[in-house]
Amino acid sequence: MTVTAEAYVLESPKAPLVRRPLQIPAPGPAEAIVEVIACGLCHTDLGYADGSVPTKKGIPIVLGHEAVGRVVDAGNDFKSLIGGNVLVPAVLPCGECDFCKAGRGNACPNQKMPGNDIDGGFSTHFLVPARPLIKLGGVSNVAALSVVADAVSTAYQAILRANIAAGDAVIVVGAGGVGGFVVQIASALGARVIACDIIADRLKLIAGYGAAETVDLSSKDFKEVRKQVKSFAKGAPSFRYKIFECSGSTGGQTTAYGLLDRAATMLQVGYTPNKIDVRLSNLMAFDATIHGTWGCPPEVYPGVLRLIEEGKVKLEPFIAYGPMSKVNEYLDAMAAHKLEKRMVMDPRK
Amino acid sequence: MTVTAEAYVLESPKAPLVRRPLQIPAPGPAEAIVEVIACGLCHTDLGYADGSVPTKKGIPIVLGHEAVGRVVDAGNDFKSLIGGNVLVPAVLPCGECDFCKAGRGNACPNQKMPGNDIDGGFSTHFLVPARPLIKLGGVSNVAALSVVADAVSTAYQAILRANIAAGDAVIVVGAGGVGGFVVQIASALGARVIACDIIADRLKLIAGYGAAETVDLSSKDFKEVRKQVKSFAKGAPSFRYKIFECSGSTGGQTTAYGLLDRAATMLQVGYTPNKIDVRLSNLMAFDATIHGTWGCPPEVYPGVLRLIEEGKVKLEPFIAYGPMSKVNEYLDAMAAHKLEKRMVMDPRK
Repeated sequence: MTVTAEAYVLESPKAPLVRRPLQIPAPGPAEAIVEVIACGLCHTDLGYADGSVPTKKGIPIVLGHEAVGRVVDAGNDFKSLIGGNVLVPAVLPCGECDFCKAGRGNACPNQKMPGNDIDGGFSTHFLVPARPLIKLGGVSNVAALSVVADAVSTAYQAILRANIAAGDAVIVVGAGGVGGFVVQIASALGARVIACDIIADRLKLIAGYGAAETVDLSSKDFKEVRKQVKSFAKGAPSFRYKIFECSGSTGGQTTAYGLLDRAATMLQVGYTPNKIDVRLSNLMAFDATIHGTWGCPPEVYPGVLRLIEEGKVKLEPFIAYGPMSKVNEYLDAMAAHKLEKRMVMDPRK
Repeated sequence: MTVTAEAYVLESPKAPLVRRPLQIPAPGPAEAIVEVIACGLCHTDLGYADGSVPTKKGIPIVLGHEAVGRVVDAGNDFKSLIGGNVLVPAVLPCGECDFCKAGRGNACPNQKMPGNDIDGGFSTHFLVPARPLIKLGGVSNVAALSVVADAVSTAYQAILRANIAAGDAVIVVGAGGVGGFVVQIASALGARVIACDIIADRLKLIAGYGAAETVDLSSKDFKEVRKQVKSFAKGAPSFRYKIFECSGSTGGQTTAYGLLDRAATMLQVGYTPNKIDVRLSNLMAFDATIHGTWGCPPEVYPGVLRLIEEGKVKLEPFIAYGPMSKVNEYLDAMAAHKLEKRMVMDPRK
């Protein structure tokens, strides 16, 4: 079947997204058409919309990489998906290359990211590679799971890379969005977590969801921050310090890097195009590691969905629901740092 | 027993080392007195001698952290070592803390480094913790093995951290000293190795010992270097690119960092106190890793000694022998970049 979708299209950077009818062609043998139930709004979308980061597809493009929906049509090999609800991962690997076979699908060179490489989920329908879709069973609130497509799964994958175990000292720099989920998941796995942010309200919220201690970076100089973090972490040997940089800011990166210690591990999760000045040899002197971590391979999603199902990771306190027709308002609010929760948007409204 | 050693002492930075008699006390229960057969001269010694890096012990101090020798006395728990030849690792972990028990002994917070934390091997005798000593069986040329204490074992440990396997594409930036041994060991393990350096003679030498291709960094701009390296490496997927920064220079670090690719791994092996300006988020976009790597835990030495015994790693082409009485000449030559090989010094001459 072909579908005429109603999509919010980025036609020119800095200008509002425009609602347009969009012809979705019949799916190829390994493709599926997803009728979007909800799509999350991510800070990355703002970067594309305001022109600070170009999309790989260029313009015009439909943004949105945090979608859940119902499969309404699929190619020959994936007919069994039709009628079922799926989560569309933000990183869609090919599933066939050396990277995918080696478990490094999130670095797959053939990967497609909705709303970046291909049209995304700010639409009633979109066309995606069918293989990486994650089937959702009989969950009660499918819409909330949209944020698992990127924010929660990226946090979970970073935690797997860090090899978090009970008793680890986890330090999260930037406790909104992805960072907030790092706090929750690490805590669910038995780690002791200290959350650092410049926004007091975020710290207040996350203190109720796994952060044993918080540090307001806006009111302390680095020496004080370091002292508080070390004092918190010292129950564990420093090879069990796992430092997550989730702020995607040069200030956050400088703080996280400065907290490295003997045999500690840092996870670079946030993104900023800006450079920082670092003494790279500290890594050598400390025998320390930095893992950069991008997205999450499809095979890892069931693990994080289970944590949510078991109630160990909560989504509702961190999201808000709204109609997709207000997407431009939400983008403006995000740019003005006035969006406190992750928006989950309904394209039918 | 106590021993009066003849030691070369750093009494003041920038001044020549001074030969002095040195009283070595009787060993404690977990200590040993090693009669030095040979001690290697490392670039790190120059940093201490010229005052650019302070030793942890301060001055006066006997430098030297690449020693082999014969145990002439030992504490109660280590009497069996007496009379045997040993290698004294450059990093001497306590063997009892959480780091040591977790296999991270090279990051042990209680570690002692001869010629830095304690008096070292530029001496006829020195006193060391007995537990981490590596027994040497009936090897033919004990003196040559001095360079295993730091240069070769540091290279080997970095290779273990990088999890090198046959077919990996190994890129070595800085192919002298430690880097040259990275080339040899990686090649012995079946990796394809490209060596990059600013010194043409080094590249010529290492081409005979495992480097399938070389890049003269002094005659190419970074884009050309990158093109040549990618062309060499492309037979392997980039998650099998292992980039070793062994130059300990900001230029080398910038080059190595710039060669990162999807899911690649960089090893920071060289040391410079200087900072570089990097886009740390590249690690995130690439899902890439940097391991800093420091020294080598004692339990890993048998593996690298075996490679040498089997003739897969050659020492002789990379070392030169000389009397320790010429240590100040060698330091001057090193400072003037005129020391082509690693000096192995005999303290009895």
